[in-house]
Amino acid sequence: MKIHTKHLAIKTNNRIEFVNITEKVRGVVKESGVKEGIVLINPMHITASVFINDNEGGLLQDFRKWLEGLAPMDEKIWKHNLTGEDNAYAHLWRTIMGRETTVAITDGKLDFGTWEAIFYGEFDGQRSKRILVKVIGE
Amino acid sequence: MKIHTKHLAIKTNNRIEFVNITEKVRGVVKESGVKEGIVLINPMHITASVFINDNEGGLLQDFRKWLEGLAPMDEKIWKHNLTGEDNAYAHLWRTIMGRETTVAITDGKLDFGTWEAIFYGEFDGQRSKRILVKVIGE
Amino acid sequence: MKIHTKHLAIKTNNRIEFVNITEKVRGVVKESGVKEGIVLINPMHITASVFINDNEGGLLQDFRKWLEGLAPMDEKIWKHNLTGEDNAYAHLWRTIMGRETTVAITDGKLDFGTWEAIFYGEFDGQRSKRILVKVIGE
Repeated sequence: MKIHTKHLAIKTNNRIEFVNITEKVRGVVKESGVKEGIVLINPMHITASVFINDNEGGLLQDFRKWLEGLAPMDEKIWKHNLTGEDNAYAHLWRTIMGRETTVAITDGKLDFGTWEAIFYGEFDGQRSKRILVKVIGE
Repeated sequence: MKIHTKHLAIKTNNRIEFVNITEKVRGVVKESGVKEGIVLINPMHITASVFINDNEGGLLQDFRKWLEGLAPMDEKIWKHNLTGEDNAYAHLWRTIMGRETTVAITDGKLDFGTWEAIFYGEFDGQRSKRILVKVIGE
Repeated sequence: MKIHTKHLAIKTNNRIEFVNITEKVRGVVKESGVKEGIVLINPMHITASVFINDNEGGLLQDFRKWLEGLAPMDEKIWKHNLTGEDNAYAHLWRTIMGRETTVAITDGKLDFGTWEAIFYGEFDGQRSKRILVKVIGE
């Protein structure tokens, strides 16, 4: 059994940003030497998401506008912000987008469909964050 | 360590359809010979979902109506459709419903509650699609 | 390869309640003896969720209010309730919050960020329920 762990560092320029991390994950899988197994990818932060969707700029704009509609950024409407925070919306957005993803590894590669791409969704950025990549298999 | 991979083919008659795939997943787990472990199930497409919920027809209709309310199918309101696509809504619906599920295997069986059933949620169908089933354990 | 399974029993006092189960999961990981691997945690019920977010009371109130807005509890608007049930909303809420989570185990511990906490989200409680914890690794 082979197990390989990597903590990727990330810092976005914008407060809200979608970053395609597919190639970084591929690199970790390659260095793990795992030929058959799975890889778990998750942010180590609760105002961010790792998810799989289409690498298309218009769709990423749609996601942002849609999330703003489902959970407004307006600070005054959320109790969490009474603690001095201003990022309640980010906790809710990450719930919609999901915390983590698990991807199958077959023949040493991500067992992916044509259009699957792995994204880090940052909802309260401009600070140093970490993404955990855990590879398990043989 | 036993690892078993299956790519199931699926083509729905309708553009939007929920298909109960519990028995197909059970079949893959059985042929894997894994007695203790996990099984990952995900579509290999970004306008579809694999999720676990109740096999009750009214609820499945509720899901559809609810998703239409949260992310309307109207083509004109999403930037993604400027690429010539008409399925932006499907990318958003699959985010709500989730891409994948991971299920525990105990004593050679899906370690399930009474009402848990595994569904493939197709949101832009009538084309050939694939579902990945990856079993890991011993 | 070490595999360890635990079914935790839970019964909430309220119909809707968020319960921090982080320490219980830590206990199961410790008794598993797994030093490197993953742990899968999921309810065995389809009106509940296991998710990771902030252990902050205001945010948990925000989640509830937000979910009520996205999928109202009003019994009359959902077809599922025509079966005699009154919990259609709970099936939808759990879809937003997610069924399960998978957490990495590194050096025998949950490989967690500072603020990550594991919650059981009960949306139709006051009855005996079970949470499955499956640890896999070595």
